[in-house]
Amino acid sequence: MADHAPRYVYAFGGGLADGDAGLTDLLGVKGASLAEMTRLGLPVPPGFTLTTEAWRAWFAAGERLPDAVAAEARAALAQLEERTGLRLGDPDRPLLVSVRSGAAVAMPGMMDTVLNLGLDAHSVAGLAARLGDARGAWDSYRRFLQMYSDVVLGMNPDLLDQLLERMLTGEGVADDGALSPDALERLTSIFTQKILEAGAAVPTTPEEQLFRCIDAVFRSWNNRRALGYRNHHGIDHQLGTAATVQAMVFGNLGANSATGVATTRNPNSGAPHLYGEWAPNAQGEDVVSGVRSPLPLNRHMAALDDEETLELALPEAYARLVEICEVLEASFLDVQELEFTIEDGEVWMLQTRSAKRSPEADVRVGVDMVAEGLIDRAEAIRRVRPHTIDKLMHPRLDPAVTPKIIARGLGASPGAAAGRIIFNPRAAAAAHGRGERVILVRPETGPDDIGGMLKAQGILTMRGGMTSHAAVVARGLSKPGVVGCRELLIDEAAGTVRAGSLLLERGDVITIDGASGAVMVGEVATIPPDTGPALKTLMSWVDGFRRLQVRTNADNARDCKIALAYGAEGVGLCRTEHTFLSEARIVAVREMMLARDEPGRRRALARLLPMQRGDLAAIFEVMGGRPVTVRLLDPPLHEFLPYEEADVRAVADSAGVPYAEAAARFDAMREVNPMLGHRGCRLGVTYPEIYETQVRALTEAACEVSRRGVEVRPEILIPLVFDPRELALVRELVTSTADAVIAEQGLPIDYRVGTMIELPRACLMADQIAPYADFFSIGTNDLTQTTFGISRDDCGRFLPLYHEMGILPADPFVTIDPAVGELVALATEKGRAVNAELKVGICGEQGGEARTIAQCHRMGLDYVSCSPYRVPVARLAAAQAALEHDA
Amino acid sequence: MADHAPRYVYAFGGGLADGDAGLTDLLGVKGASLAEMTRLGLPVPPGFTLTTEAWRAWFAAGERLPDAVAAEARAALAQLEERTGLRLGDPDRPLLVSVRSGAAVAMPGMMDTVLNLGLDAHSVAGLAARLGDARGAWDSYRRFLQMYSDVVLGMNPDLLDQLLERMLTGEGVADDGALSPDALERLTSIFTQKILEAGAAVPTTPEEQLFRCIDAVFRSWNNRRALGYRNHHGIDHQLGTAATVQAMVFGNLGANSATGVATTRNPNSGAPHLYGEWAPNAQGEDVVSGVRSPLPLNRHMAALDDEETLELALPEAYARLVEICEVLEASFLDVQELEFTIEDGEVWMLQTRSAKRSPEADVRVGVDMVAEGLIDRAEAIRRVRPHTIDKLMHPRLDPAVTPKIIARGLGASPGAAAGRIIFNPRAAAAAHGRGERVILVRPETGPDDIGGMLKAQGILTMRGGMTSHAAVVARGLSKPGVVGCRELLIDEAAGTVRAGSLLLERGDVITIDGASGAVMVGEVATIPPDTGPALKTLMSWVDGFRRLQVRTNADNARDCKIALAYGAEGVGLCRTEHTFLSEARIVAVREMMLARDEPGRRRALARLLPMQRGDLAAIFEVMGGRPVTVRLLDPPLHEFLPYEEADVRAVADSAGVPYAEAAARFDAMREVNPMLGHRGCRLGVTYPEIYETQVRALTEAACEVSRRGVEVRPEILIPLVFDPRELALVRELVTSTADAVIAEQGLPIDYRVGTMIELPRACLMADQIAPYADFFSIGTNDLTQTTFGISRDDCGRFLPLYHEMGILPADPFVTIDPAVGELVALATEKGRAVNAELKVGICGEQGGEARTIAQCHRMGLDYVSCSPYRVPVARLAAAQAALEHDA
Repeated sequence: MADHAPRYVYAFGGGLADGDAGLTDLLGVKGASLAEMTRLGLPVPPGFTLTTEAWRAWFAAGERLPDAVAAEARAALAQLEERTGLRLGDPDRPLLVSVRSGAAVAMPGMMDTVLNLGLDAHSVAGLAARLGDARGAWDSYRRFLQMYSDVVLGMNPDLLDQLLERMLTGEGVADDGALSPDALERLTSIFTQKILEAGAAVPTTPEEQLFRCIDAVFRSWNNRRALGYRNHHGIDHQLGTAATVQAMVFGNLGANSATGVATTRNPNSGAPHLYGEWAPNAQGEDVVSGVRSPLPLNRHMAALDDEETLELALPEAYARLVEICEVLEASFLDVQELEFTIEDGEVWMLQTRSAKRSPEADVRVGVDMVAEGLIDRAEAIRRVRPHTIDKLMHPRLDPAVTPKIIARGLGASPGAAAGRIIFNPRAAAAAHGRGERVILVRPETGPDDIGGMLKAQGILTMRGGMTSHAAVVARGLSKPGVVGCRELLIDEAAGTVRAGSLLLERGDVITIDGASGAVMVGEVATIPPDTGPALKTLMSWVDGFRRLQVRTNADNARDCKIALAYGAEGVGLCRTEHTFLSEARIVAVREMMLARDEPGRRRALARLLPMQRGDLAAIFEVMGGRPVTVRLLDPPLHEFLPYEEADVRAVADSAGVPYAEAAARFDAMREVNPMLGHRGCRLGVTYPEIYETQVRALTEAACEVSRRGVEVRPEILIPLVFDPRELALVRELVTSTADAVIAEQGLPIDYRVGTMIELPRACLMADQIAPYADFFSIGTNDLTQTTFGISRDDCGRFLPLYHEMGILPADPFVTIDPAVGELVALATEKGRAVNAELKVGICGEQGGEARTIAQCHRMGLDYVSCSPYRVPVARLAAAQAALEHDA
Repeated sequence: MADHAPRYVYAFGGGLADGDAGLTDLLGVKGASLAEMTRLGLPVPPGFTLTTEAWRAWFAAGERLPDAVAAEARAALAQLEERTGLRLGDPDRPLLVSVRSGAAVAMPGMMDTVLNLGLDAHSVAGLAARLGDARGAWDSYRRFLQMYSDVVLGMNPDLLDQLLERMLTGEGVADDGALSPDALERLTSIFTQKILEAGAAVPTTPEEQLFRCIDAVFRSWNNRRALGYRNHHGIDHQLGTAATVQAMVFGNLGANSATGVATTRNPNSGAPHLYGEWAPNAQGEDVVSGVRSPLPLNRHMAALDDEETLELALPEAYARLVEICEVLEASFLDVQELEFTIEDGEVWMLQTRSAKRSPEADVRVGVDMVAEGLIDRAEAIRRVRPHTIDKLMHPRLDPAVTPKIIARGLGASPGAAAGRIIFNPRAAAAAHGRGERVILVRPETGPDDIGGMLKAQGILTMRGGMTSHAAVVARGLSKPGVVGCRELLIDEAAGTVRAGSLLLERGDVITIDGASGAVMVGEVATIPPDTGPALKTLMSWVDGFRRLQVRTNADNARDCKIALAYGAEGVGLCRTEHTFLSEARIVAVREMMLARDEPGRRRALARLLPMQRGDLAAIFEVMGGRPVTVRLLDPPLHEFLPYEEADVRAVADSAGVPYAEAAARFDAMREVNPMLGHRGCRLGVTYPEIYETQVRALTEAACEVSRRGVEVRPEILIPLVFDPRELALVRELVTSTADAVIAEQGLPIDYRVGTMIELPRACLMADQIAPYADFFSIGTNDLTQTTFGISRDDCGRFLPLYHEMGILPADPFVTIDPAVGELVALATEKGRAVNAELKVGICGEQGGEARTIAQCHRMGLDYVSCSPYRVPVARLAAAQAALEHDA
């Protein structure tokens, strides 16, 4: 323990530490882990940590260390000198230290570090004597000069690197480990000369060097890399970093010394064995910077039998390391990623932190640790990042490959796929027939393209956003989709697509990644979805912890089956428009649109009724007694309009209307802003026969399935309501139709009628709307669009920049925005105030996103609904929300 | 006074009345006015009124009179019999009554009336004896049978009308007044026979007839005409009607009898003389139904010197009528519209109510009444409907003409105009050069059409809504505009436009009414705007009463001058995009869009800068020291895209880019929902050089004008903000640019920076946004669009129906919606809570609408801003709001 109460500086060493693992906010992950390891009695070189408070004081004072902080640091240094029996700058027994950055959040490689501080021309000899290794001492000094000139003085590191290269050549040796002490001594003179030539200088006293290094390490919090990283990860710029000053240990003292990095379990597979690399006679930077090719730690890692593993080369040190790892896991209760140095056979710990790991490992480690009694099930559930599960559900790019990305669009439907470029949907279907795998590449897609989309491996469009036709259909089909890829210019006539200077032709192979939106040339290796036993075990635990029900957005029986297999408890959103969109059916839809009057519309609708009924019956059958929420027609009629002459002609012929008239009439129906146009229940108000037909089809389907002895629980969902009178009117239409069918069929069907809450006005008037609704389904997609005044289809030109600039920390279409959340909470509260029985769920894309699910849990919603492949993620996130919120 | 406390029935007669003019809610306008006139000692036949409470009781009881009500009615009948000395159904001294509907709100001609009730075959003789007029008695009876069969029995009135016609032919007389008593007696038998043949019957006792008539009159509240009228005028269907039973007086007793309608002043001009028509020897229905051609009341009305006026024919009765009118105006303090009957030389009043009048009369009457000491200025201001002023500001259709409307679109820019149909904007300009007046008829307009729009008398489009390009430009140019007229189908190639079965060709003359959205064939007479002395006087009064400042939305110096002349106190919204839209300039805008990088954009912007500067300098110059709010570029870039090949080629050539590339690049910029797309301050975030150029132009213009000694008060407005960080960023760009120009020019310019509040999220986060804003300009157009999720451009297909069905009582784009108002109030409150100096104004289209202005006043806003021609309306409405709210 320090003999003073620490404020800005926390010391550790000799089994004592001011801090512990709980103080990561103050000491950074590194500082806190060093303190904790010290307390655990593990071999940690002594040192001290300047806290993030010290950083803030330093920053507030104009990037200089206030006197009070400097005084504490000097006191800690004195204590360190006492503990080691060495003294900074002492020519005979010089103390050498490292100065390392370390924030409360991991920002690997973003900030700076200086090693071997404490040497000058005088003390090198003292170090050589102390270590009994002149080469090691001079090597340490030349390393220090290189790092100091780079990190503190801001010189171009290439300048000294070139001098080192020249020396290696001159001496005829392969690497720096082979340089003689004499050559290294000469190199330090040459380095010093070069630094002076550059108009800079290394301070003459090591203490001065130390404080300059602390400044530099503190400054590196705000270097460009770090700023960009924090913007990208939404990390607060005000957190600041800690800096740890620690006595050096030397991995570069010959064959009995080494440095290495290890993970306590395999971070790729999760297998329970030590994993990592080491380099003999080297310092940590060598391994990290790639100056030295590292060697495998043990037989699990070795590709060849005769590879020089640490296990074989230094078996005692290896055994000690394994022992340390067991202590670490037992203490930190998580897989650790650690740095160690072996100085003359003795193992020293320089850092430990929770290990990054693959999705597979993430799940396996959690499940294994429960079996090992290290953690309980709740903790295993708490730890798995929902994103992990999502990744395991789809084929993804092999992380071992670094693909060349030629363009980036919006990742609209997750999964990776490769195939030949094809522009024409009909040709796509033909190619599929020939057994070829194709990626359908289109400016945008429409209902006429469904045939081709069904047959393609993936879909890539130039225009449109996350709710564009292509995006919605791709997600519906669970096919990889990248949309709104504006960097690509298609010339369909020429059969080419241009990405910058690159020209691709029809038939060229590309790979798309629907998770990240990346487009790549050629076939990039992918790995298949994981359905391993660990995932099954984990998922078997989550349902016992969650309160939120998890339903699925599914439009057909196939998706329902998938969702059921993944644990869905009902359908939260079945979009009936999908019945209308297939190629064979859309002509009937368009004939309805073309009809001049109600009887005309009814004739066309009569042809659609059996199709709708059949689709819904199949869904009811699959879902058994679970609730199935069926949304009445929602998309703008605009979306059904034909564009190609042939398509217009097909409708005109079928309807017996002259082509010119049909074309003019369709033209008059085009909308400027279809998202805000003639859609949702506005269709039910203006053309009641549409909803009437849909409700008839639905109720007939329910009766048909019920008659076969299968329980049905239909919930009829009225979309895009903005007014209580509007809902009252449409509800009346719905119930009178459903009741009439029930009376005709003589079968009792227990149905409910609810409404989408997806417009700000509906949220504001929820207390007036709720009396007409058995349930609210919150449509966060449209609610986000209208609350922000942004179209998902069009935001690709500015939203990424907003994200990058930190205006919007999160994508509001992925994670529910606070202001949108405020409206959702308001709607829920107002609705329940007048209708205590009101069920409230969320069915936007955000319904499968963890932070949104956590908020839904906090707001007391009843369920979330998401696409089939996200059901497991949602179940996990719901359990995590319950564990966190209700704890 | 009645000898019982009235509950459901209020009696009047003999100078006494249970009710008075204050009870219109209960007695209807008619019942209350009869009570009041009775109290004033005016000659009113006695009677009683069943109240609207009685109606509600009747309606609640399943459309039958509850016993309590019927008992009160019988008691009132007994009192009436006593007052008149007559008895209903008495063969010798029969009482005859009328039964008239009358609600609290005027619904002229919508509901039913029965006259001459109380006759049967026995009592006709008694009536003849009482009146000394057998013809009059039989005439009354046949009239009763006609009305009863129509109103109560629901027979087709043509059936009896045809029998009357046949009788006239048979008797060889021209009109019913010339039929002999004998012929009339025979006619009543024929009528009775016909009624029996139709399977109906007139009850045998007059009391039974009376109660059936009361039922029928009550029922007529819910007849189809009345329902439609109330839906159209937003009148509550639950109000119900009163029914007045009143002793008949007879205008059909010969030459000394008459009936008539009058207004106490000329309702067209407002001139202070009695105005109206009369018919000798007739009952009221004859004049109303057009059976008789009425005659002019007096010399002011007579077209010919020798016309038979009441003034000449019955001078004593006329003098009595004038005297009554003076009493009425002095009592009701408003122009009255009245019905009277002269029975044998004696004048009887049957109704009085405030008179409908023309816009001119509305203003003149108010001003004259102040001069006459009848009312004060505040009352004169309170009374003028804001709509009146609006009508007076534009040429309008002559109300004397009933035009044939062939189609109806959205009335996007008020005023009426006639001209030849022309489809091509360039041809429009050419025709204008030849001195022809043209109406530009287009599917929709775009920036390339401006030249033609400038030269047309009016603009008519098929697509688009109230914020479409055509609508915005038409209002900006103060030209009549009808948009979104979906019933018309244009075939530009054929040079035709079809409206249903009607085919119009290029060059045909049409008239459009931009107030109502009507399209008419041929040239319809219009009347010019009014700028008479009464209006000037009235407007000179209003500013002393209002608290809200009134500014104008004006984009150029010409509009600013107009607005100033109308009393604007500043510019509340100057849309800078108008600088960008002219044909000569748009190429530069498109080059900017086509540029690949910032330098390219800057080159194009450099060409726009002097244009922007010049336009703004002209505005600053005109506006002198008044605030001028200049909005930075707001519309979607999408709106500037070229569509025609020639336009694309022009930009490609000018920018030195291959045509195909330019076309593809423009194509990639098209947006699905431009209203929610790349627009507003998103342009300032993504392309800061655009706003930088605009702010530079603005500040340079301000300096230039200031240097000439004219005070300037620029207010820079940042549009479409949804986040405080976004505003902070753009504000910083704006102030740093403006300050740099001010420093360069060495002139102090006092500018302010504010933001549009036009998205729900901005309202919800107003407390976080306000620290970065000197003022909020509430953009109710976009706020309404996003709160409702409806696009003004596209709502034409459903919003009119919503209005008609009563879902939305008012058009939310005209009158601020309550939920939108809630958001505005929230934004104002949250904004002022953190920034007490915050100025808040409203600048949407609603800024010139009276009910919205009243709400702005109540919410404590600082100003409203509207188009130049609406400034007077806004000033009046602001004064009215202050008079009402602060009273």
